[in-house]
Amino acid sequence: MRRILLSHGGGGEDTWRLIRELFLKHLYNEHLIKLEDATVLEVSSKIAFTTDSFTVNPIFFRGGNIGKLAVAGTVNDLSVMGAKPLYMSVGFIIEEGFPYEDLESIVISMKEEAQKSGVLVVAGDTKVVPKGTADGLFINTSGIGKVVCEGLSCSNIKVGDAVIVSGGIGEHGACILAQREGIQMDVELESDCRSLWSLIEKIITSGAQIHAMRDPTRGGLSAVLYEWASNSNISFLIDEESIPVKEPVLGLCELLGLEPYHLACEGRVVVALPERHAQKVLSIMRSHPDGEGAQIIGRAVPAEGSPKVILRTSYGTHRVLDPPAGELLPRIC
Amino acid sequence: MRRILLSHGGGGEDTWRLIRELFLKHLYNEHLIKLEDATVLEVSSKIAFTTDSFTVNPIFFRGGNIGKLAVAGTVNDLSVMGAKPLYMSVGFIIEEGFPYEDLESIVISMKEEAQKSGVLVVAGDTKVVPKGTADGLFINTSGIGKVVCEGLSCSNIKVGDAVIVSGGIGEHGACILAQREGIQMDVELESDCRSLWSLIEKIITSGAQIHAMRDPTRGGLSAVLYEWASNSNISFLIDEESIPVKEPVLGLCELLGLEPYHLACEGRVVVALPERHAQKVLSIMRSHPDGEGAQIIGRAVPAEGSPKVILRTSYGTHRVLDPPAGELLPRIC
Repeated sequence: MRRILLSHGGGGEDTWRLIRELFLKHLYNEHLIKLEDATVLEVSSKIAFTTDSFTVNPIFFRGGNIGKLAVAGTVNDLSVMGAKPLYMSVGFIIEEGFPYEDLESIVISMKEEAQKSGVLVVAGDTKVVPKGTADGLFINTSGIGKVVCEGLSCSNIKVGDAVIVSGGIGEHGACILAQREGIQMDVELESDCRSLWSLIEKIITSGAQIHAMRDPTRGGLSAVLYEWASNSNISFLIDEESIPVKEPVLGLCELLGLEPYHLACEGRVVVALPERHAQKVLSIMRSHPDGEGAQIIGRAVPAEGSPKVILRTSYGTHRVLDPPAGELLPRIC
Repeated sequence: MRRILLSHGGGGEDTWRLIRELFLKHLYNEHLIKLEDATVLEVSSKIAFTTDSFTVNPIFFRGGNIGKLAVAGTVNDLSVMGAKPLYMSVGFIIEEGFPYEDLESIVISMKEEAQKSGVLVVAGDTKVVPKGTADGLFINTSGIGKVVCEGLSCSNIKVGDAVIVSGGIGEHGACILAQREGIQMDVELESDCRSLWSLIEKIITSGAQIHAMRDPTRGGLSAVLYEWASNSNISFLIDEESIPVKEPVLGLCELLGLEPYHLACEGRVVVALPERHAQKVLSIMRSHPDGEGAQIIGRAVPAEGSPKVILRTSYGTHRVLDPPAGELLPRIC
């Protein structure tokens, strides 16, 4: 089996061969081919800029791999800020001995995922570290997008705003957890990992007024709602029964004593918007393959003391949702 | 001793505390404080974009640390493309148990280094991985610069161009090597790690025509010259005696049987430019504290067969410099 060697990261001939025969082969475009220290790009005057490192374990999971996840993650971070993803960089930190074929299939996934939103990989970097000093492969992606919808912000949510989630929550976190711990469910858990630009473009070009969007990754739905509540100084009243959670995710949560609200998604978006636009956006989302399971889950209410997230249970009682805290799940993304 | 915990990367309360009490405390600016998924920025129409991951071992070395290196590396990659560094992102991958105080002093170094060129850290990400799955700390930095000098390119060098290097070569590589292997020299080796924007700004605003600039990192001077030769289809005739190499670097190379031309610099720039502008640029460089040791080291000549780098030795004989190959030195940057 071909393996990645230290020399692939040394800056010499092997590095150049890896760049040409693997990265350029799959990720080729007019910018990347220039292979300069920095890539010169034309952009509009207002851009969005984001970065994320990915350390997910396992590297290959049901529904994706670290490469697909890295591209989708960066595309989604730009999209939820109302920015069309244009360009991205990819930095690989590879453990010596990592299988070459695995790296290639990860790069192919990145190419395929990038094509879905049209984002181009225009800058890259490869480091190889000695065996035992990293666990397989880490990827950093940074992205630049063109802002097409301004004013989206976590501090922009108003009392009365409706909250929509685009589909079943916690599927990525549950999938990773089950696969890592070797837990078999009757129905296999699959990550929701996907790029959301196509769906989000439909939403922001619909004419509906949007106050905030976020993809609920680490810390899950709970983290997004608490961040919004704290930044906008409001609380949320959420109807627990309306939150879409698929059966196997519920099953795993019951098995392990977890709440699905804390599990990461990697292909869902939470939208906060004036109530009068909620039905329109809901139908736009439901008519898109990436938003079929969309639901209005609740609304923003006055903070009344400290901002918090209140769940109305199926019994009609109320409880305060725990904010994400503690260890949660390492290496989920 | 306070240490970094898995929960610092979990997306919950501890993550937010780390962001506020460490990253924002030192790297605060109007963009970073917004803490959105992506940062909205105003830029000119032509930008340069670059990325680099840093895995240097040891993390603290004479003349710098991984944080200073990461900022300087990204600043330099933008600068050599003729771009004024404006914005950068920082992605940390931290091993569980890493000392909190070490992380803080690294972040303070980043702040100080960023101030030298005026670049702002506007986006960040923190992942913590379980003990044993990374070696201390890895940092990715991506940068955006405003292109103020167009047309610089590794494929732009013409026969007759002079080549200038801004100071002693190989000091970063030699310092890391000596420190890692516990080699004591009579005169201590210190990394040349520094941001070059201040020096490069002087060069590109001097009115002199510049064909290419590069900072010779992995693979050292040899890698830069071979990359230029191959991309511009020329060869280089380099006067070995004119290449600035400090005494302790030469000593270490003799001890270990290395050539200084293959050792990394992290604070030098190599410039290719029409010969008639060489003296002017040389004096500009020598009058700047970061270019005091600048030398004209040779010139571009016709390729004659495959592009190569020819050294004229002190005996007047010629030899072909080896291109960088093989393992070189892992985790130099």
